[in-house]
Amino acid sequence: MSTPLISHLGIAVKDFEDAVKKYKLITGDEKPAIHKVIDQKVNAAIFEGKKGCCEGGARIELISPTSDDSPIQNFLEKKGEGLHHVCIYVKDIEKKIKELKNAGIRLIDEKPKIGAEGNKIAFVHPKDTNGVLIELEEMP
Amino acid sequence: MSTPLISHLGIAVKDFEDAVKKYKLITGDEKPAIHKVIDQKVNAAIFEGKKGCCEGGARIELISPTSDDSPIQNFLEKKGEGLHHVCIYVKDIEKKIKELKNAGIRLIDEKPKIGAEGNKIAFVHPKDTNGVLIELEEMP
Repeated sequence: MSTPLISHLGIAVKDFEDAVKKYKLITGDEKPAIHKVIDQKVNAAIFEGKKGCCEGGARIELISPTSDDSPIQNFLEKKGEGLHHVCIYVKDIEKKIKELKNAGIRLIDEKPKIGAEGNKIAFVHPKDTNGVLIELEEMP
Repeated sequence: MSTPLISHLGIAVKDFEDAVKKYKLITGDEKPAIHKVIDQKVNAAIFEGKKGCCEGGARIELISPTSDDSPIQNFLEKKGEGLHHVCIYVKDIEKKIKELKNAGIRLIDEKPKIGAEGNKIAFVHPKDTNGVLIELEEMP
């Protein structure tokens, strides 16, 4: 089975409608999937390349808070708009977490939780990954 | 022909060797392509998924200045380590530049230049793309 590196990038935005309009133009994807992620309290829009063409082609996910107590609202207040996370596919998330811990790389989630798309995920601490918040996602 | 969305992400790092070591572990790619980009005065390491498996699978490019007058040195001093740019594939870069300009989205490069991999590229102004520096790259 093929193993692409990147699942998606999450970009935190304030004005969801306006950002969706711009990214339609930039990416050329005029029909992004729009959905609500209840536990993160965000609206999300997922842009991809030519639909269905590239197995595992990385996507761009715009995320915008729907409530003041969303973790993304907190991010926007502290850091402003911009890249929030990069999601990388891994084959065996428990094994990867162990490897990283053994190498002294800190994890936000030492045990996997279930992500928006139903897969096992875990976040790595950005202090140990050169300032980029990396999400690990086990390939379904 | 397939049209993936993302060519690569560029991440600015200070300690190149240390960052390469960490990203080998995180991505599972133990043999990233290492090269010098002369005009940007950077060392670059490009990490991908399982080699050769996924046409157009997005890659991670670590970039680190080799000289104090590198544009990446400037970025590190102002913003610190982290995501520097997201590179998106486009089919016709002149057409895309025109479309974006017509929509009021500012470009850093109003005319394409030639990127490190020999393709036509242009940067979009991050003020008009929610804080993310987007590089457009014409598919070869």
